[in-house]
Amino acid sequence: MNTTPFARSGGRALDQLRPIRITRHYTMHAEGAVLIEFGNTRVLCTASVEEKVPPHKRGSGEGWVTAEYGMLPRSTHTRSDREAARGKQSGRTQEIQRLIGRSLRAVFDLKALGERTIQIDCDVIQADGGTRTAAITGAWVAAQDAVNTLLAAGKISASPLTGAVAAVSVGIVQGQPLLDLEYVEDVACDTDMNVVMTGTGHYVEVQGTAEGAAFSRQEMDQLLALAEKGIAELVALQRQSLRN
Amino acid sequence: MNTTPFARSGGRALDQLRPIRITRHYTMHAEGAVLIEFGNTRVLCTASVEEKVPPHKRGSGEGWVTAEYGMLPRSTHTRSDREAARGKQSGRTQEIQRLIGRSLRAVFDLKALGERTIQIDCDVIQADGGTRTAAITGAWVAAQDAVNTLLAAGKISASPLTGAVAAVSVGIVQGQPLLDLEYVEDVACDTDMNVVMTGTGHYVEVQGTAEGAAFSRQEMDQLLALAEKGIAELVALQRQSLRN
Amino acid sequence: MNTTPFARSGGRALDQLRPIRITRHYTMHAEGAVLIEFGNTRVLCTASVEEKVPPHKRGSGEGWVTAEYGMLPRSTHTRSDREAARGKQSGRTQEIQRLIGRSLRAVFDLKALGERTIQIDCDVIQADGGTRTAAITGAWVAAQDAVNTLLAAGKISASPLTGAVAAVSVGIVQGQPLLDLEYVEDVACDTDMNVVMTGTGHYVEVQGTAEGAAFSRQEMDQLLALAEKGIAELVALQRQSLRN
Amino acid sequence: MNTTPFARSGGRALDQLRPIRITRHYTMHAEGAVLIEFGNTRVLCTASVEEKVPPHKRGSGEGWVTAEYGMLPRSTHTRSDREAARGKQSGRTQEIQRLIGRSLRAVFDLKALGERTIQIDCDVIQADGGTRTAAITGAWVAAQDAVNTLLAAGKISASPLTGAVAAVSVGIVQGQPLLDLEYVEDVACDTDMNVVMTGTGHYVEVQGTAEGAAFSRQEMDQLLALAEKGIAELVALQRQSLRN
Amino acid sequence: MNTTPFARSGGRALDQLRPIRITRHYTMHAEGAVLIEFGNTRVLCTASVEEKVPPHKRGSGEGWVTAEYGMLPRSTHTRSDREAARGKQSGRTQEIQRLIGRSLRAVFDLKALGERTIQIDCDVIQADGGTRTAAITGAWVAAQDAVNTLLAAGKISASPLTGAVAAVSVGIVQGQPLLDLEYVEDVACDTDMNVVMTGTGHYVEVQGTAEGAAFSRQEMDQLLALAEKGIAELVALQRQSLRN
Amino acid sequence: MNTTPFARSGGRALDQLRPIRITRHYTMHAEGAVLIEFGNTRVLCTASVEEKVPPHKRGSGEGWVTAEYGMLPRSTHTRSDREAARGKQSGRTQEIQRLIGRSLRAVFDLKALGERTIQIDCDVIQADGGTRTAAITGAWVAAQDAVNTLLAAGKISASPLTGAVAAVSVGIVQGQPLLDLEYVEDVACDTDMNVVMTGTGHYVEVQGTAEGAAFSRQEMDQLLALAEKGIAELVALQRQSLRN
Repeated sequence: MNTTPFARSGGRALDQLRPIRITRHYTMHAEGAVLIEFGNTRVLCTASVEEKVPPHKRGSGEGWVTAEYGMLPRSTHTRSDREAARGKQSGRTQEIQRLIGRSLRAVFDLKALGERTIQIDCDVIQADGGTRTAAITGAWVAAQDAVNTLLAAGKISASPLTGAVAAVSVGIVQGQPLLDLEYVEDVACDTDMNVVMTGTGHYVEVQGTAEGAAFSRQEMDQLLALAEKGIAELVALQRQSLRN
Repeated sequence: MNTTPFARSGGRALDQLRPIRITRHYTMHAEGAVLIEFGNTRVLCTASVEEKVPPHKRGSGEGWVTAEYGMLPRSTHTRSDREAARGKQSGRTQEIQRLIGRSLRAVFDLKALGERTIQIDCDVIQADGGTRTAAITGAWVAAQDAVNTLLAAGKISASPLTGAVAAVSVGIVQGQPLLDLEYVEDVACDTDMNVVMTGTGHYVEVQGTAEGAAFSRQEMDQLLALAEKGIAELVALQRQSLRN
Repeated sequence: MNTTPFARSGGRALDQLRPIRITRHYTMHAEGAVLIEFGNTRVLCTASVEEKVPPHKRGSGEGWVTAEYGMLPRSTHTRSDREAARGKQSGRTQEIQRLIGRSLRAVFDLKALGERTIQIDCDVIQADGGTRTAAITGAWVAAQDAVNTLLAAGKISASPLTGAVAAVSVGIVQGQPLLDLEYVEDVACDTDMNVVMTGTGHYVEVQGTAEGAAFSRQEMDQLLALAEKGIAELVALQRQSLRN
Repeated sequence: MNTTPFARSGGRALDQLRPIRITRHYTMHAEGAVLIEFGNTRVLCTASVEEKVPPHKRGSGEGWVTAEYGMLPRSTHTRSDREAARGKQSGRTQEIQRLIGRSLRAVFDLKALGERTIQIDCDVIQADGGTRTAAITGAWVAAQDAVNTLLAAGKISASPLTGAVAAVSVGIVQGQPLLDLEYVEDVACDTDMNVVMTGTGHYVEVQGTAEGAAFSRQEMDQLLALAEKGIAELVALQRQSLRN
Repeated sequence: MNTTPFARSGGRALDQLRPIRITRHYTMHAEGAVLIEFGNTRVLCTASVEEKVPPHKRGSGEGWVTAEYGMLPRSTHTRSDREAARGKQSGRTQEIQRLIGRSLRAVFDLKALGERTIQIDCDVIQADGGTRTAAITGAWVAAQDAVNTLLAAGKISASPLTGAVAAVSVGIVQGQPLLDLEYVEDVACDTDMNVVMTGTGHYVEVQGTAEGAAFSRQEMDQLLALAEKGIAELVALQRQSLRN
Repeated sequence: MNTTPFARSGGRALDQLRPIRITRHYTMHAEGAVLIEFGNTRVLCTASVEEKVPPHKRGSGEGWVTAEYGMLPRSTHTRSDREAARGKQSGRTQEIQRLIGRSLRAVFDLKALGERTIQIDCDVIQADGGTRTAAITGAWVAAQDAVNTLLAAGKISASPLTGAVAAVSVGIVQGQPLLDLEYVEDVACDTDMNVVMTGTGHYVEVQGTAEGAAFSRQEMDQLLALAEKGIAELVALQRQSLRN
């Protein structure tokens, strides 16, 4: 699959991730604070521990993990309206933050967390495609750091994290399946799929959308294979960043 | 797959759709007005033709297809707050209406539609699981009726519809892959997947979510096969309802 | 009053109601669920029992009855904006739902209801004039069904309903007083009056508005007489539907 | 009707208005600016001329008359929330401002007004019952002053006002029909009716509500007679204030 | 400084306040209700005692003092939108009400107030410049009246007020420092400064803004001197009004 | 003033700024993109050029400069609610963004800018006191970069910037005047003043607030002197960063 007439920026191979950088402790207040970069896409992911739970969990003995997502107004090529000024979050924002929350909860034992909340905030500093997948991948590292603070403080005795979770986008551009789309590829693609998987290679979320022509089963299989490869690499990078 | 210890209501087989009913011309004002029933789930889908387009399409010569979704407050087991009274649509509502809109646009040639909008409204009268898949399946029939009014009125000379689109949910309950989940199954399932396909068997959307344990590639393959079977049957029922 | 040059659709007499149909148990979840039809006007009225009361009734030993009203976007001739999408209910919607709530409370002994709420939802499926009067008339039947569930469950020992309540519109079109206006008559009328009365012929609400010229005392008397006749018929139909 | 055991404050007769005061030019910026007092109820009514019309009147050659209503937070016995701070107007506020607008339009020839708007603002400085009827009565005087400015400026050549309009509340307290209820009477009443009439004694609006027991036709007739008497007196006071 | 070519309306000297009038007990419900007039600027300031505190003070043994501000729509030369109808308060409104609240709290011993709130409402009846400074000056008198009710009722035994507070605007117009700007001066000024001081001549707030050219230290000193003179006069008038 | 018992973190002198860092081109999309750091306070300031103006400037031949401000939810010690999720900006946010906009406009010749907008966005990545003064100081550098793009593109022929603008906070803590307060000092201070000055040492804004005791004229003079010193240093740093 690596030799092809389709040219990606920087000579990137079709099945190659962009350069990934994970910077922990990027800000000083949050229990977990990770700047994750997928090429030019930069997302600040913080994990805040709050000693309370939303109403549907009160008295349950279980905790909660939830997420919010935002883009700085000029993180994008042309400035987007500030959602706080408009007075509401867009449908896209809500979809993404619900996805991040579900993805993280998939690897959390809420009972082991105890009656507290880990609040994830993913804020896009600079956007160049793949902000939601970078957000999920970075949020997991931030959550791990937050869990470590709880362990260090003796508030919990065992980690509520049951494994890793990471995400990547895949898509078909000019008939070619590509891993980890940057913005110009995302705009050009016929099919766009975001895949969230655990460290053990199981699916947490698969969201595939035909932007242009509908896609065949064979194309789906190619995309799922690419995503599996990319996520395995991302999980390795997550683990490595935690060892630093 | 039909002989199994898992018992569905009404003796339904694991790969069997609920009884589907499609009633056209259910209300009198809309160009397309379809009541679709997937068992006890009942959704009213109207398609309204509006001779204007949203700003991003003005002057483009192209039309637009968009959708809104709502649930009557007591369509559900316990009453839900009325979104109009709360003053905003939930994230779930926005996700679903965006999905319906994308699904319909996948089979529309917007240039052939001309500079006008087909506005889909999907309102859940009674909910018992699968409201979004019923909505997409019914909306396509309503859109076809609206297109027929445009053709009959001579406003367009050829149909902008490039094919059919339908949707179904699949999921894994107690290890068993099931087609077309009703509410009690939806609550119990580990994995929930909504699949939208064209009449020619290509994917428009695949949205799979692990509610409990993450799912394997093999499980995904089983679910996709079930969905393909169900959607083929739904498209046949759509076409049959249009012949009446 | 029955022989006149003014022609109503379907040869209806000036003092004649449209065909009224009351369908109980129209949906399956609500304690009371009534589809009421005044000719082409169709309103789904549900009554939901909630074991809580709003703040101003907490600890009072009394219950509460309240109502919300909505129109499906394409229940009308041209599509209306969805109030949930606009983010607020119109003044008209609020006026109508306050009227429905007051009308129902007029025949409720809130002490006998106990500290619980009957929440009425009136949703217009198809509009052809008189949606608020149909809503009140249908809501009373739904409330009666909800009360019956409470009695059957032994939660209350005597009915909190002190009688029936129904409503009808009357108006003056081209100098002719008419009973139960349909949409084209409503648009054409000079005076429009909505009357809500009990089963014993007393007034709960009278709301008369001069749309064109102000109206005389004599015209008011004619309208009140027409309304009294119509409401007596509606109450008979309500009681009959409850015997089925 | 004047000799009765029921005692009103200040020895007021049952069919007697409170002391009415109408102060024109109460503030300096508005084209019409009237402080109207019904006893302790004080409402500031301004009429502003705006050389534009709302969208539904653009290009029609017709003008528009509309109204907004508000209560200062501490105009009431206990402080009410400020609607601007809560971010929305209550249903009651919307009902009242719609009523004021309709009442004024009933005596306006919108064609003669020309394509401009008269915007009425009624703000309650002090509330003691009857704020909406005082508002309508005062707003008409303010509108007359605004019309006079237009005439004086030569913007219109004939008055678009076709007559006077005024309003009063009536009600039944302890079986006694009363004219012009003050707050303590309003709280105690079984039936509350707001009547809006023209200077020639025709009805513009009748809104009667049974707060406690439903009311009979005979009671309605008594209330309508009381209202007619009160409104005739109010119209005389309006005309007198304009002569000053 | 009194002889100058710059002419103020009514022959006012550059360092002269407009005629100030303070009318206590202007409305009947509020514990303090003061109409304050700075020339044509008229603001109704009410102080309401509420036997509760906001969440951040609950259980603290301390009270709270807070303020809201509004302008009647036609208090201004051309009508402003009603904030309640627009659904939100402007940034200017919020700035002003926060300023009023802070200014009043500067002279309150919240512990001596006890766990209750004094809610200030400042509503502009007529605007001609300086509404926020009139509001602060009037609000202090209203607050004093509210405190007196608490003392008279024996709810507190000593006044929580530690002194007086008043405010005035100063500015530079055509190079001339002016005291207490009216609207036409405010529009023309290069520098606009609002100063809030205690009765003992200390600063509570200084807010200076260069509308045109930035201002020098020397100009600031001139403005501060003018403000000090004006506030001393205002405090004398406040004290005098309380003796009446 | 440098020898004193009061100890600042890191041995900082009372009249010493925190370490200031100005990083230009921090993100890639905006015409100006500056990360400014005042010690641990980090604010991203972007300047976006938009070829349109708000309604009040259309057709005027003049441009506009405006600003928005936000804090990332976990930029603070404990997490703050996301304003986009709450659906409105706080009064504090609005105050600050209005201040930033006014400060920048003070050094802009809007006619020379031409009919276009420079939209400033200041987003706090990490907060440790002084976010608004850092925002103004950084925004000016970003605006200069945006102006340079316009000059380079030949859209304007001369710079609309008439000079530099910078801001700093000063305050009194335990009787000691301090320059550039960090968070713990801000919380402890009796008086807090934000000063905005031009590069030529004139005042654009002075906002002083007594948090505890009111402050004397002598204290104000000390604070103004400190601010003048700090701003001169900041302007030198701004100019130096532009030379890099």
